[in-house]
Amino acid sequence: MKRVFCTVLPLAFQTAKLFKRSQFRTIPVSKTLHTIKEKKSNIIMEESLSKFFNYVDGNNQYLVSQLREAIPSVSADITKRSEVFRMAEWIKDRLTKLGADAKFVDPGTQQLQGQIVQLPPVILSRYGNDPQKKNVLVYCHYDVQPALQSDGWETDPYSLIEKEDGRLVGRGGTDDKGPLIGWLLTLEVFSKIGAELPVNLLFCFEGMEESGSLGLGKVVADEANKWLKGVDYTIISDSAWNTKSRPTISYGLRGNNYFSLGVSGPVADLHSGVFGGVVQEPMVVLSKLLASLVGIDGKINIPGIYDQVMELTEEEEKTYHKTSLTREDLENSLGGDYLMQKDVIQSLMHRGRYPSLTIHGVEGAFYDPGSKTVIPASVKGKFSIRSVPYMDPATIKKITIEYIEKEFKKLNSKCKLEVIAMRQGMWWYSSPNLKINIAATKAMKRVYGKEPEYVRDGGSVPIAMVFEEQLKSDVLLLPMGTYDDGAHSTNEKLDKYNYTEGIKQFSALIHELSVL
Amino acid sequence: MKRVFCTVLPLAFQTAKLFKRSQFRTIPVSKTLHTIKEKKSNIIMEESLSKFFNYVDGNNQYLVSQLREAIPSVSADITKRSEVFRMAEWIKDRLTKLGADAKFVDPGTQQLQGQIVQLPPVILSRYGNDPQKKNVLVYCHYDVQPALQSDGWETDPYSLIEKEDGRLVGRGGTDDKGPLIGWLLTLEVFSKIGAELPVNLLFCFEGMEESGSLGLGKVVADEANKWLKGVDYTIISDSAWNTKSRPTISYGLRGNNYFSLGVSGPVADLHSGVFGGVVQEPMVVLSKLLASLVGIDGKINIPGIYDQVMELTEEEEKTYHKTSLTREDLENSLGGDYLMQKDVIQSLMHRGRYPSLTIHGVEGAFYDPGSKTVIPASVKGKFSIRSVPYMDPATIKKITIEYIEKEFKKLNSKCKLEVIAMRQGMWWYSSPNLKINIAATKAMKRVYGKEPEYVRDGGSVPIAMVFEEQLKSDVLLLPMGTYDDGAHSTNEKLDKYNYTEGIKQFSALIHELSVL
Repeated sequence: MKRVFCTVLPLAFQTAKLFKRSQFRTIPVSKTLHTIKEKKSNIIMEESLSKFFNYVDGNNQYLVSQLREAIPSVSADITKRSEVFRMAEWIKDRLTKLGADAKFVDPGTQQLQGQIVQLPPVILSRYGNDPQKKNVLVYCHYDVQPALQSDGWETDPYSLIEKEDGRLVGRGGTDDKGPLIGWLLTLEVFSKIGAELPVNLLFCFEGMEESGSLGLGKVVADEANKWLKGVDYTIISDSAWNTKSRPTISYGLRGNNYFSLGVSGPVADLHSGVFGGVVQEPMVVLSKLLASLVGIDGKINIPGIYDQVMELTEEEEKTYHKTSLTREDLENSLGGDYLMQKDVIQSLMHRGRYPSLTIHGVEGAFYDPGSKTVIPASVKGKFSIRSVPYMDPATIKKITIEYIEKEFKKLNSKCKLEVIAMRQGMWWYSSPNLKINIAATKAMKRVYGKEPEYVRDGGSVPIAMVFEEQLKSDVLLLPMGTYDDGAHSTNEKLDKYNYTEGIKQFSALIHELSVL
Repeated sequence: MKRVFCTVLPLAFQTAKLFKRSQFRTIPVSKTLHTIKEKKSNIIMEESLSKFFNYVDGNNQYLVSQLREAIPSVSADITKRSEVFRMAEWIKDRLTKLGADAKFVDPGTQQLQGQIVQLPPVILSRYGNDPQKKNVLVYCHYDVQPALQSDGWETDPYSLIEKEDGRLVGRGGTDDKGPLIGWLLTLEVFSKIGAELPVNLLFCFEGMEESGSLGLGKVVADEANKWLKGVDYTIISDSAWNTKSRPTISYGLRGNNYFSLGVSGPVADLHSGVFGGVVQEPMVVLSKLLASLVGIDGKINIPGIYDQVMELTEEEEKTYHKTSLTREDLENSLGGDYLMQKDVIQSLMHRGRYPSLTIHGVEGAFYDPGSKTVIPASVKGKFSIRSVPYMDPATIKKITIEYIEKEFKKLNSKCKLEVIAMRQGMWWYSSPNLKINIAATKAMKRVYGKEPEYVRDGGSVPIAMVFEEQLKSDVLLLPMGTYDDGAHSTNEKLDKYNYTEGIKQFSALIHELSVL
C-alpha cells in the first residue's frame, strides 16, 4: 500500500459493520507457560533460526539476484497488462517449484482506457496442511506503479541496480516485490537448510493493488470458507518503517469518507462579462460552503464529528512519547514549518487518532494556467474526512450532509445543492497487545535488536478490514522497507539491510506465531 | 467579438490612461442646418439609398451566395493556420478587384501548440481618398472559432446552408464573416448601381480575433499616423442585437481585471491520510479567501471598490426603462431563475454600469471527476473584476491586493500568499449622444423602422479602446446579427433578414456619417 488508499473495494466491505475492541486488549500470560513442550519448541526455533540467519548472511548476493526479475507489471497501463499476467505466471510457477499448492482466482473484468479487460488473477497458495500447525496467511501484491526513465530515474527502472551505499534501486523494490520475493525466499531457505516450516503458510497475492484492489474483496469473501478457511493470522506485508532507525508496527489506520459537494445553477457556463453581477454564481456558493467546513487550525466545524472519537488513555498516550520521529523530520518532509501542532506528539495524534478534513479540489470550474472568463454553471467541491475509532460511517455521512445543508440554507441562494458520500472506507484498529503484534515485536527484537515503534497510521488500507472481517483473523501490518524508499516515486529503492533482515524477520515471525 | 474578451492585447493598451467623458455628451443641433448644400446631399442620399436598397431586395440570393466562401479560417488551430492565410488572400484579392487599395501588415509571430508560427496578416485597405469626404474605418475579423460536425452541427459547419426559416447556418455566419462580407458587398453594390461612395472607406480586418487579437494593438499604433491617419469614425462590426425585435447600439463596455490568488504551502502534494490534520492546507486557506471576496447577492466586499463608479443620472436611468428585454428572456437564457435582481432594469444596470466579481476556478487542485486523496501543495484561485467608468485599474489592483492581504493576515496561516493582477483591460464608454451614434440611430430607423436600443454591455472589447485612443476617433459598435445566433457554438447562424438589412444599414450609415 505505501500510504495509498485503495479506492474501489465493494461497498459491502467499505461499510463493514462497526465493532468495538477493548483499546488495549490484555493477553493472559500464564506464569507456568514454560512447559516441556514449550521448551522443546524453543530449542527447535533457535536451531532453525540460527541456520536460517546463517544462510541469509552467507547468501546475500543470491537473495538480491532473486529480486532482479524485471517484469514491468504495471496494473494501471493497458499496454502493460500482459506483463502483469506474466508476473502472475512467474510467481505461480515459482510457488509450485517450491512445493506449494497454487491456483489463480479470476476476479473478473474492468473497464480500462475505454476497453473491457481481464483483471490479473489473485494467486492463492498454501504450503503445508498440518492440522497441528497454525494457518498463517500472507498478503502481498505483484503489480507496481508506472515508471519511466524520463521521469527522472537515474537508471532503467526495470533493471535492479545495487548501489554502493546498499540501495537496491528499481521499480517495485520496496512496493511490493521486495516483500513478496522475500516471502518466497523464506519458503526456499527453510527448504534449503532442511528445516520444517513451523506453520502452514498461505499466500494471497494480488495484481491490482496499485489500481484500487479491484475484485480482491469479492475473492476473499468467496474463498473465506474454502481455500482461506481456518486462517489464524493474516500478515499484510506492504507497509514501511516510520523512521530509518527502528522497525514500526502500525496498529491503526484511519478510514476515508470522500464527499462531493455539488452546487449547480444556470444550464450552461456563462460569459462573466455578460452575466457577472447578474446571475448567482455556483462557485461563490461553493467557496463559502468549503470555507465553512474546517478551520485553519484543522478543527472540523461539523457538529458532532468528534463525539464518537475513542478517548485517549494514559496507556496510549505513552506510546506516542516513545517515538523517534522529530518535529524536524516532519518539517523536512514538508519543506518548511507548515505544521498545525507545536510538538510532534500532537502531530502524531492528529495523524493517527483524530479525524481530519481535507479539501482536494473543484470539478467543473476553470483549472488551467492562464485565464478564462467563464462563470462555471455547475461545480463540485471534493473533500474527505479521515475517520478514526469509533466513528460510524453512517453518522459521518448524516451529520456532514446535515451541516452543509444548514450552511447552504443560511446563504439563501437560488442554486441547487447536492452532497454525495462518494465512498466510505472504514478505519482499522488493532492493539499493541494483540498476540500477533507481540509475536512480531519479539521477531523484530531478535532481528533488529530494537523494540518496534507502535504507531497509528493516518492512511487507509481497506483490505486490512476485509481480511479481519471475512477471515475472523487478527491482522498484522508487517513492513520491510522504510519511509524514504520512494514508493510510487522515482528511484524507488529498498535498502539491502532491510531486504535481508526483513527475510530473517519473516522466518522469526512465523516461529513466534507457531508457539503462540 | 460576440461577447468574447480579447485576451492578449499589449499591456500598453490595456492600461490606457483614464479619461473622463461627460456622461451624455450634448451635440449642438443647429436649427439652421438645412442649408441648400444639405438639401442637395439629402437628395443624393435618398436616390443612392433607394437604388441600393432595391438592388439588395432584388439580389438576395446573390448576396447569400457571396457568404458561401467556405474557408475554415480557424486561428486557434495550428493545422488550420494556412487556411487563415488563404482567407486573407481571398479578401485582399476581392478588395483589389473592387478597386480598393489593400495591403498586408505582418503582426509578427506567436507560439502555438509548441511551435513558433506566423500570425495572419492585418489587412489594411482604403477605397477613396477624397479630402472633402469623411474617413470612415471599418473593423471586422476574418478568423473563426473551431467547429467540428461531431460537436453537434446539423450539417457541415463549413458549408453554408440556407434553411427554410431564413437561417443561414455555417461557422462564421454571424461571427464575423457575415459583417465582413456585408461590407465588401456594400462597396460592390455602390459600384453596381453606379453611385458614388459618400465617404472614404477604410478597412482593418484581422485574422486573430478569436485568439486574443495578437499583434493588432501594435499594428494600429504603428499605422495610426500612416495608413490610418485622419480617420474620423471607427465602426467595429462584430457585435449583436440584444433582442430579436430591435437593433442595439452598445455605448459602453466593462473592463476586466483578472487576478490570480496564490496560496502555497508544503514543497509537494501530500497524501491526505498521512498529513491530513497535521499540515496547514493551502486549499483551506484559499477557500476562505475566495469566500471573503463577494456576497451571494453579488456585492463585492473589497472596501472602496464602488467609490469610483459613475453616478447614475436620471437621463441614463431612462434608457434602461426603454428595454425590450424581459426578466423572462434572462431566465430563459439561464434555464431558470438564478438572477440576483428582482427586475430586469436592475439586472441590466448590474450587467453594464456596475462592477462585478466572478470566481472562475482553482489551478493546482484536483479537478477530475472521481476522487483523489491528495492535499494540494500550492493552489491559485482565479477571479476577475469587471470594471466600469470611472474605475482606475491601478486603484482596483491596489485595493484588491490590500484587502486579500488583510483577510489573509486574519487567518494567521503559515502558508504563503501571492496575489497577481494577471491582466487589466480597460472599460470603454461612449455616449448615446455622440454624432456617430446619432448617425447609426438614423440609419437603423430607416432600415428597420425602429429606434435602436441603447445599452451598456457587460463584456469587454479592448480593441474599442485601442481604436479610440490611437486614432482619436469616436467608435461605434455596429451589430448585424442577433444574440441567439450561436456565435462560438454549434449551428451558428445569421438570419437572412439581418444579413440583407444589415448591408442596407451599412450603406445608410455611411450616408448619414457623410452629412454629419
